[in-house]
Amino acid sequence: MNITLAQAETVIAAAKKKAAEINTKMDICVVDAGANLVAFARMDGAWLGSIDIAMKKARTAAWFTMGTQDLSPLVQPGQSLYNIEHSNGGLITFPGGVVLKQGDEIIGALGVSGSTVEDDQTVAEAGAGAI
Amino acid sequence: MNITLAQAETVIAAAKKKAAEINTKMDICVVDAGANLVAFARMDGAWLGSIDIAMKKARTAAWFTMGTQDLSPLVQPGQSLYNIEHSNGGLITFPGGVVLKQGDEIIGALGVSGSTVEDDQTVAEAGAGAI
Amino acid sequence: MNITLAQAETVIAAAKKKAAEINTKMDICVVDAGANLVAFARMDGAWLGSIDIAMKKARTAAWFTMGTQDLSPLVQPGQSLYNIEHSNGGLITFPGGVVLKQGDEIIGALGVSGSTVEDDQTVAEAGAGAI
Amino acid sequence: MNITLAQAETVIAAAKKKAAEINTKMDICVVDAGANLVAFARMDGAWLGSIDIAMKKARTAAWFTMGTQDLSPLVQPGQSLYNIEHSNGGLITFPGGVVLKQGDEIIGALGVSGSTVEDDQTVAEAGAGAI
Repeated sequence: MNITLAQAETVIAAAKKKAAEINTKMDICVVDAGANLVAFARMDGAWLGSIDIAMKKARTAAWFTMGTQDLSPLVQPGQSLYNIEHSNGGLITFPGGVVLKQGDEIIGALGVSGSTVEDDQTVAEAGAGAI
Repeated sequence: MNITLAQAETVIAAAKKKAAEINTKMDICVVDAGANLVAFARMDGAWLGSIDIAMKKARTAAWFTMGTQDLSPLVQPGQSLYNIEHSNGGLITFPGGVVLKQGDEIIGALGVSGSTVEDDQTVAEAGAGAI
Repeated sequence: MNITLAQAETVIAAAKKKAAEINTKMDICVVDAGANLVAFARMDGAWLGSIDIAMKKARTAAWFTMGTQDLSPLVQPGQSLYNIEHSNGGLITFPGGVVLKQGDEIIGALGVSGSTVEDDQTVAEAGAGAI
Repeated sequence: MNITLAQAETVIAAAKKKAAEINTKMDICVVDAGANLVAFARMDGAWLGSIDIAMKKARTAAWFTMGTQDLSPLVQPGQSLYNIEHSNGGLITFPGGVVLKQGDEIIGALGVSGSTVEDDQTVAEAGAGAI
């Protein structure tokens, strides 16, 4: 089962609302369970460099069926997945990428980028909570 | 001057409406005047292969400030721009990419892919007409 | 022997002058004999898509020590170099790329893009003639 | 609002002057606010490997609307943006990339590479100060 466009639009609307509440400008990307793009929105004034980061966060979460923040400790020097970012045309392994679930099933993933990683994660969780 | 996210969402909504009217499923991409992504939507069941085509149509139109269908005759074998598609990481030079204007100024571009090129162009024009 | 930056700037100035004379806006790229970038200028309002095309024209001319227009007939369907554009990360094989010579020696190449291929070639020849 | 070619040439001239004063050879790149190339110059004898670094420094500064040296502490192992360099086809996050402003508005960015990062930054600041 995959996320629908209507669900992705709901996720993006919730993420935009939270981003505005905490006074940030975000790039927001939704992919399906196959890591293929479903929907994207760049808020006015959001960083251009965060377009690709939001996409890579979403894809990283979909590819490994876990939030990007769960990968962060594992990719540090000396840790087991050190430099995994070189795979798949580039991963992003800091917070802001989360899986999207319907019940217990992963139906896609959401990536948010445009502020501190704490803000990115806050907005991503707000988006994911909308399903 | 660049397109706003609100304008891009209006364009995508109009494109989705037309796509549904003519019974097609489309990938729809809006970029700004600098060819940077603003918004994207993949209608449920639309071809995965059209995600990238919609993006490349939008970027091609923004990069050359003209609709992709104006390029089609020029890129044929023996014509002046033959194999221009090898530039810029890949162009798409068949119909479905159009510029987005506010008055006389180009503020972005729209790319549509998912059906015949005639249908793609019809939906792109409906989207562009919404600004 | 390689082109100097001062020579490259002379070439670009001559190309800009000719482009203005024929009322065009060009992207202009100079590479050395090793196909490495020396200097570049995008005239105000020139196509963004022509940045990469000007670069690829210059590199193509440097890589094969001949003008891109000499390649055009050879890359057509059925001809000997058909689809050579797939090499080297992308070639451009229509007019607008020329070699730069000091006496009989090739010291670099110039790529021009932004108008018709005839205009591009005219501006490229004007640039090359400045050395 | 975007930087003009005339402004970019002024920036490059100032950067070249400073580079010569401190006895270095630099690759110097100017992009517009959309991170698209405007002008480039490689001083005679400057490292070939710095062509791409100067470009990536300029783009990184434009994409994130901040100097690359502001990113350096954030991308270290254990820090919040660790390995962000894997995005956008490759970032450079050490000093030498700066934004270019007209009044309060960012109109482009400048990247300088070819010596120590301290020298690169010195030359970049001299270039940026010319607008």
